[in-house]
Amino acid sequence: MQPNNPIAPARITSGMDVDDLVCALDGCGFGAGRLAQACDIYEEMLNDDSATKFFGLAGAMVPAGMRNIVSGLIRDGHIDVLVSTGANLVHDILESLGLPHYKGSEIVDDNALHREEIDRIYDVYVPDLHFAHLEEHLLRVFPDMDDHISIREMLFEIGKSLTDPDSILRASYECNVPIFCPAIQDSMIGLHAWLYRQTNPLNVDVFADFNEFIDLYFDSERSGALLIGGGVPKNFILQGMLLTSKGFDYAIQLTTDRPESGGLSGATLNEAKSWGKVSKDAKSVTVYSDATITLPILVAAVRSRLLSV
Amino acid sequence: MQPNNPIAPARITSGMDVDDLVCALDGCGFGAGRLAQACDIYEEMLNDDSATKFFGLAGAMVPAGMRNIVSGLIRDGHIDVLVSTGANLVHDILESLGLPHYKGSEIVDDNALHREEIDRIYDVYVPDLHFAHLEEHLLRVFPDMDDHISIREMLFEIGKSLTDPDSILRASYECNVPIFCPAIQDSMIGLHAWLYRQTNPLNVDVFADFNEFIDLYFDSERSGALLIGGGVPKNFILQGMLLTSKGFDYAIQLTTDRPESGGLSGATLNEAKSWGKVSKDAKSVTVYSDATITLPILVAAVRSRLLSV
Amino acid sequence: MQPNNPIAPARITSGMDVDDLVCALDGCGFGAGRLAQACDIYEEMLNDDSATKFFGLAGAMVPAGMRNIVSGLIRDGHIDVLVSTGANLVHDILESLGLPHYKGSEIVDDNALHREEIDRIYDVYVPDLHFAHLEEHLLRVFPDMDDHISIREMLFEIGKSLTDPDSILRASYECNVPIFCPAIQDSMIGLHAWLYRQTNPLNVDVFADFNEFIDLYFDSERSGALLIGGGVPKNFILQGMLLTSKGFDYAIQLTTDRPESGGLSGATLNEAKSWGKVSKDAKSVTVYSDATITLPILVAAVRSRLLSV
Amino acid sequence: MQPNNPIAPARITSGMDVDDLVCALDGCGFGAGRLAQACDIYEEMLNDDSATKFFGLAGAMVPAGMRNIVSGLIRDGHIDVLVSTGANLVHDILESLGLPHYKGSEIVDDNALHREEIDRIYDVYVPDLHFAHLEEHLLRVFPDMDDHISIREMLFEIGKSLTDPDSILRASYECNVPIFCPAIQDSMIGLHAWLYRQTNPLNVDVFADFNEFIDLYFDSERSGALLIGGGVPKNFILQGMLLTSKGFDYAIQLTTDRPESGGLSGATLNEAKSWGKVSKDAKSVTVYSDATITLPILVAAVRSRLLSV
Repeated sequence: MQPNNPIAPARITSGMDVDDLVCALDGCGFGAGRLAQACDIYEEMLNDDSATKFFGLAGAMVPAGMRNIVSGLIRDGHIDVLVSTGANLVHDILESLGLPHYKGSEIVDDNALHREEIDRIYDVYVPDLHFAHLEEHLLRVFPDMDDHISIREMLFEIGKSLTDPDSILRASYECNVPIFCPAIQDSMIGLHAWLYRQTNPLNVDVFADFNEFIDLYFDSERSGALLIGGGVPKNFILQGMLLTSKGFDYAIQLTTDRPESGGLSGATLNEAKSWGKVSKDAKSVTVYSDATITLPILVAAVRSRLLSV
Repeated sequence: MQPNNPIAPARITSGMDVDDLVCALDGCGFGAGRLAQACDIYEEMLNDDSATKFFGLAGAMVPAGMRNIVSGLIRDGHIDVLVSTGANLVHDILESLGLPHYKGSEIVDDNALHREEIDRIYDVYVPDLHFAHLEEHLLRVFPDMDDHISIREMLFEIGKSLTDPDSILRASYECNVPIFCPAIQDSMIGLHAWLYRQTNPLNVDVFADFNEFIDLYFDSERSGALLIGGGVPKNFILQGMLLTSKGFDYAIQLTTDRPESGGLSGATLNEAKSWGKVSKDAKSVTVYSDATITLPILVAAVRSRLLSV
Repeated sequence: MQPNNPIAPARITSGMDVDDLVCALDGCGFGAGRLAQACDIYEEMLNDDSATKFFGLAGAMVPAGMRNIVSGLIRDGHIDVLVSTGANLVHDILESLGLPHYKGSEIVDDNALHREEIDRIYDVYVPDLHFAHLEEHLLRVFPDMDDHISIREMLFEIGKSLTDPDSILRASYECNVPIFCPAIQDSMIGLHAWLYRQTNPLNVDVFADFNEFIDLYFDSERSGALLIGGGVPKNFILQGMLLTSKGFDYAIQLTTDRPESGGLSGATLNEAKSWGKVSKDAKSVTVYSDATITLPILVAAVRSRLLSV
Repeated sequence: MQPNNPIAPARITSGMDVDDLVCALDGCGFGAGRLAQACDIYEEMLNDDSATKFFGLAGAMVPAGMRNIVSGLIRDGHIDVLVSTGANLVHDILESLGLPHYKGSEIVDDNALHREEIDRIYDVYVPDLHFAHLEEHLLRVFPDMDDHISIREMLFEIGKSLTDPDSILRASYECNVPIFCPAIQDSMIGLHAWLYRQTNPLNVDVFADFNEFIDLYFDSERSGALLIGGGVPKNFILQGMLLTSKGFDYAIQLTTDRPESGGLSGATLNEAKSWGKVSKDAKSVTVYSDATITLPILVAAVRSRLLSV
């Protein structure tokens, strides 16, 4: 228990690159030290060719401007399996169709926004009209789908219909990286699919893509998870491991959710070890901080390291 | 803008009942004032016979000991529609089968817990063996289900199979209160349903209960929502309103999620007004505090008021 | 490690008093269970005649309407030593002079408020004019003070000048309960004292009341601390123990500050054990929740118990 | 209200420097956008020669490894006035005397740590023996002080006694940048000063440095504040402005404290506008994130920009 690893105060120099900064934080405590540790673990996880890489995407990361980072990770082969909320995929389609989000303010009269038909996501605005264009696009895509289709396949078809190379759905389609979205009903994709099937055949079985999902765990020699926020993506990624006798070998959480409220979103990765979802010797760390700040740093730092090899 | 409503400092007396306490907080600021306001809104919502009452249940509320409160609200006619995470329903089944949760500690060696086959949920423990009993029970229930079934119907059948009057699922079955669980795959109910259907017919269409869900909005003259935590239950309840030209007339959030991280879980109810999910004249309030504390207070206070009429 | 204390789901009944509610939460996990535990510890601490009772008051508890609770605890003999931020004392003087705070809104144009000369504290408003009355009052009080005076004595003199029985400062004066306020400069009391001493003798030595403060630790057989929020009051109360070979025997924190940011405000009471500030066998608990909700519950429940003996 | 500033999703490239990263986040929402805005404001503030630069230092930033950043800002002329908690200065002295902090773990048996005489600050350890060396050093410094001394002068003398160029206190001494610490009693510097004056003359008047502090406001044409955390440093810096008819022209907060609990630490900078502490046209932003991550980024980015001019 005797400490032997002195805190090395960070030195900041002009022009330092992001990885230099992360290395400068490596000797620090609190969030700084955890972020540096997350970069080390992520680098090791990406370099481990035997590890299947899971990525959990919750929170409004796409509206906040994080989609190019995610699609870039897919294209670079750093994501083997993506589990997302429906909302992030809906907003990815909007951006892919050239329908941007806008910078706004969280201090605003929301009734006035409603009158102007602008929807707010904290300090990001979306014109409500965008969703009409979303509907038009989906109504063009649905008819090409099989009558019986899984959620994963449905998202694959939507990805095929898009052309924007920065699209998460498109990158996933091109790179054959499966996207799972257990609560697809809980999104505008789901709303429009339901409206469409009022008059057209479209049967989406809840469990149709589950074999494929579970096989990813069984077929993995080792595995790692990068979890952005909590919610269904985190739970679903961790839960799948319960069917195996294995646990994640690498696990990183970037979140602002806290353990004290007891929900799974804020649960520590140690808690996940009690369940066997994360292996007892796993390399794991949680960085409690805004993921729109920490994810770009993590990706910039680790990308530099991988290239410099 | 000139203020005219003085803060009335709370007076606490020995033996005061919960509603007295809430009334004593009514003149206070911050969380105290918001909690009192939530009670007023909830009382008005429950007294509004024209209002359909939605209840969103996220977080690990059942493991924490909140299930009797929820099943009691169902039995009292205070919940017309329940939207839940799968986990809360899984843990409701455990308790209903006489498989309790246990008080534990969040400061513990999780690898040691794993060796002892105890799963941790913050400071609550669940013996892993309980889940074997869960599986046995579900395997007895699944064969009685129709080959084609909706998630709502599946939960109804599970409720029918239980006898514990404090069970959320049982109360929902007896009182014919529908439970929706969009991400059923993301739970042990889902895992076992998937395992069962490997060798048995069981087709669960994602959208099979969506008509029934949406009709609840269209058939409502007015509507109110009590949202415990965020996640899929919150989003799904608010999203349904988008298909109508209405908005919720009453909305209460009990949560520890914050707006600053931008996710839907922590979004303010004002933000929901920009989307039209909550009506511009709605009575709405968010109480930022641990829901295992605020939900019991809310229910105790409002139950007293309803009886005293 | 085998669990043997089952979670007992809370039962809520109409008309239950606050202590009934707390007892109903005693079998629950998360915040509910911690709040019940806090009540048990607080009851035991108040019943322990050998224990000196410290009370730390940070956050804007007085503007929020919590002053009667604190002055009531002083009058009931439940606080032996009060350590407060300056701001809580400033706002106590305002209320004591009949200058109320007002309920307002946190969603407001603050520049408009400024033009109307209204100061905002989250959702509480204070007319700026009130502070002119504060100044007048203090200027009447300062001349009666000794030229050399400690902070503790200064606050005692202010308490003497007030007549409102609900005043914290007045109750402290009448009951001879010392109030310590290490950062008195960091408040309007300090600002006005400084202005006054530009032309009048008023010497306030930083350490003049330190002997008295430290003696309280040495003269205590046992000791307990109820900490509302963090800040200087928490640190100062815990720090004093470092001069002794003892530690607090009882410690309760009601706070929304979290450990992850590393500051003392959010530090766990276990962390305080590593320093010896809290004794290794202390009864201690932190309730992570809005103190404007949990403090009234704690006081109501424990007051009932003490009277029922 | 019509939005016209599209979100520009961040592009991350290998080897990008920190300022590139910040510029890439400039088109994003949530914390990413706010951090980029903070860098813009900080750059403008540092380039404004007419602005007096205040720096508020709360939280355990020095134990976490942030001291070189603060001393560097002093040496670069980017801090004109420092207001700190006592604890940060205590830990600065430790490091300056070659007594390091150590990386530890927040998941640990604190009673075991106590037996090993190791004090914990979240995941940072301090051997208790270090404080004996602190005492020795202070006992060598106190005799050189005037019998009547202000807190600011006392800290100046301590800075003079240190030789470590990375020391905040030393840098402040060399660069003649005043450090104010209103709650000096609430620190080990205070404890030892009190012990010393039991047998030696040492009179520290609370208000002795207040004129000097307030003059800084009156002598400023314009002013800016960078606030790390809340507590006394934030309140004291903002409060000083109340004596003038001015308000801060620039204000940046890096904090994890939230507005909802109502305390001053988490109060928004807009709230400060209602009081007139921040001017109505001020450039201001709060970044809700761990300051051990955001402060290094802010400093690295702005330092690059200043050099590149």
